[in-house]
Amino acid sequence: MRISTLSVGDELICGETTDTNAGTIATMLVEHGMRVQRHMTVGDSEPDIIEALLELARNSDAIIVTGGLGPTADDLTARAAARATGRRLVLNDHARAHVRDMSARLASLLVCPLNDKQAMIPTKTTLIPNPTGTACGFHLMNNGCFMFFLPGVPSEMRLMLRSSVITFLADRITPKRVIRSLLLNVFGPCEAEVDELLTGIARPELGLRLGICVTFPWMRITLRAEADSEDAVEALLQPAAQAVRERLQGYIYATGEDGIDDVVAELLQGSGRTLALAESCTGGMIAQRITSIPGSSRYFLEGAVTYSNEAKIRQLGVPVALLEEKGAVSSDVASAMAKGIRQVAGSDLGLAVTGIAGPDGGVEGKPVGTVFISLAAPDGCWTKRFLFSGSREEIRILTAWTALDWLRRYLLMK
Amino acid sequence: MRISTLSVGDELICGETTDTNAGTIATMLVEHGMRVQRHMTVGDSEPDIIEALLELARNSDAIIVTGGLGPTADDLTARAAARATGRRLVLNDHARAHVRDMSARLASLLVCPLNDKQAMIPTKTTLIPNPTGTACGFHLMNNGCFMFFLPGVPSEMRLMLRSSVITFLADRITPKRVIRSLLLNVFGPCEAEVDELLTGIARPELGLRLGICVTFPWMRITLRAEADSEDAVEALLQPAAQAVRERLQGYIYATGEDGIDDVVAELLQGSGRTLALAESCTGGMIAQRITSIPGSSRYFLEGAVTYSNEAKIRQLGVPVALLEEKGAVSSDVASAMAKGIRQVAGSDLGLAVTGIAGPDGGVEGKPVGTVFISLAAPDGCWTKRFLFSGSREEIRILTAWTALDWLRRYLLMK
Repeated sequence: MRISTLSVGDELICGETTDTNAGTIATMLVEHGMRVQRHMTVGDSEPDIIEALLELARNSDAIIVTGGLGPTADDLTARAAARATGRRLVLNDHARAHVRDMSARLASLLVCPLNDKQAMIPTKTTLIPNPTGTACGFHLMNNGCFMFFLPGVPSEMRLMLRSSVITFLADRITPKRVIRSLLLNVFGPCEAEVDELLTGIARPELGLRLGICVTFPWMRITLRAEADSEDAVEALLQPAAQAVRERLQGYIYATGEDGIDDVVAELLQGSGRTLALAESCTGGMIAQRITSIPGSSRYFLEGAVTYSNEAKIRQLGVPVALLEEKGAVSSDVASAMAKGIRQVAGSDLGLAVTGIAGPDGGVEGKPVGTVFISLAAPDGCWTKRFLFSGSREEIRILTAWTALDWLRRYLLMK
Repeated sequence: MRISTLSVGDELICGETTDTNAGTIATMLVEHGMRVQRHMTVGDSEPDIIEALLELARNSDAIIVTGGLGPTADDLTARAAARATGRRLVLNDHARAHVRDMSARLASLLVCPLNDKQAMIPTKTTLIPNPTGTACGFHLMNNGCFMFFLPGVPSEMRLMLRSSVITFLADRITPKRVIRSLLLNVFGPCEAEVDELLTGIARPELGLRLGICVTFPWMRITLRAEADSEDAVEALLQPAAQAVRERLQGYIYATGEDGIDDVVAELLQGSGRTLALAESCTGGMIAQRITSIPGSSRYFLEGAVTYSNEAKIRQLGVPVALLEEKGAVSSDVASAMAKGIRQVAGSDLGLAVTGIAGPDGGVEGKPVGTVFISLAAPDGCWTKRFLFSGSREEIRILTAWTALDWLRRYLLMK
């Protein structure tokens, strides 16, 4: 089945927004044994949308269109769809009911009552329900080509794609090809290092591909196998996955969609240990990540963002002398912070970071990027010095990730 | 001039990599008074590349192609370009010299020695030098359509685009068009409300466009004016900008690329006031945003992530009785937290949030999404109740943004 995608929006064509929907659709199709043959992007111009639809329809069995279903005047996709397929644009009662109902439900999320524009749908179409937004999607068949129209809001688009479009298309693929991907999330080594370590694992001629996608500060290794049967796919995928694991060992912190936050949360939950944080240069970034996981209150007690020395002294009981003698960014102060927060919070684990995120503040012997991370636990206190490079935000992110990864490795040992 | 872009690569069509080149080109063209009419992406398939080139050529004066110029077998763009334009693919001596020279220079950067494949260039083309990579770009003219071929590596592509392609095209725009954009960042109202408030400001027939792009939880209003001269553009842009400001008043928190963090930082810096934070449901998100700005240590003293009641009592001095009587998520506790952190930190301002981010924890009269925000200042303490809806993360983000916006409005009043 030849599938094309079309993204609609001036913000995309003018480079104000990066189009992530095209990638999301491509990934999800691949996971279900299909792939995009071609993608197109046009602005909020009715003639351009119509022309793109007709052009793509010429050599596609299905077109997935995102964007331009919003309530505003520059949302023109529904009208263009009607024109391109010789349909009338009419007020759809179901869509209208949905828009009203949804507007009411979302009212507190700063959404106000919308007009009926979003309920204007081409005739002879099937609505695609949107559980989280006001814009209904719809699909139609025109000259043997399925056309799906989804809103451009990524979260809404993703839900509707999975619930309606993917299954609809998957049922129609013949002959069935099985494509499976395995995602391995890696933190630590650089791309070139990983690339070298994984040499020879990919076997494209057999239908086994390996991709490395760097998403600072981590990277995702994608193993994709394509074959005629589940068994054949597994026979390609499993040994390759095993090889990747052996060569990268501790660097793989999660598989699939799990982030390092999820992994640390699971390990903490499982260990029955409680955690408290003392952050200087990360300014709350670690606490924010820990508490992003539902139920974190079961193991996370408190965090102290001790930016000033006074705060380090008062909140964590770091000795004044130590601060004066060694400086706020030092191994001794880091461990004093970790032990301090562990004691005041009465937690099993105390994790502390102190460093120089820059752009200013570097000193002789302690350049910008110098960071100390300390973990205080019942069985001891470990402190380590790191030197990160990059922008202020990159250094902060690397510090938070390294601290979380440290915690992950500690919990795995226990 | 009608300009199209074409990105080539299986990694794009399979969603492993997000295509940033299309956006870079679009942005740079707009900055120089041009715009992309349509964008296309195809995989590493010679027929697909040829078909895309021919199709785009039909209604473009220029096509900018990125990707598929690499050394590996799946880099097919040069050959496809030759086929599509009826040229031969020959070994180009200049390109060959460049590849060898560059390979030698880059050897230290883990680039493997390359063969002559990258020196195979279609006949009747002009090379586009690549100062940082091995792949030469080239451009040619076919049936009145300029075609530019650049490598897909973003950093190389960007350099070559600016040095060669943009100037080449800009010289050929007739009549010269000037395009300017003005970005206004808005937090508070919903898209439909903003759209209604701004009705009639856009005058597409005069070359004045208005776009609304929602990026949860804020939205960006783009005013774009296109005319023959700087003066004519300003004459369109300035009155429109004035009108938008009047109609949206306090909702516009920044222009251009500034985020709400930058604005709050600037206001705090200017006011000479110091800030301390007490966060419950946001778990450090506000502190993390405040400290993301360089120099924040000048006005940010400390933050307390008081997740447990014990922490609220010990770190902030919230009365036990109050917690028992009113509950941790209450107006009284919120103001006690704000006053508490202000006092212990000795800051001018104390900002506190407490709420139920969910998905669990909702109770009778206090459903998930109930949040109290409190600001303690020398001239009083203000506390307000909010009800946000959405996922746990959306509620946390809305809480952080609303608190920062509150702070912004307070500082603007002073």
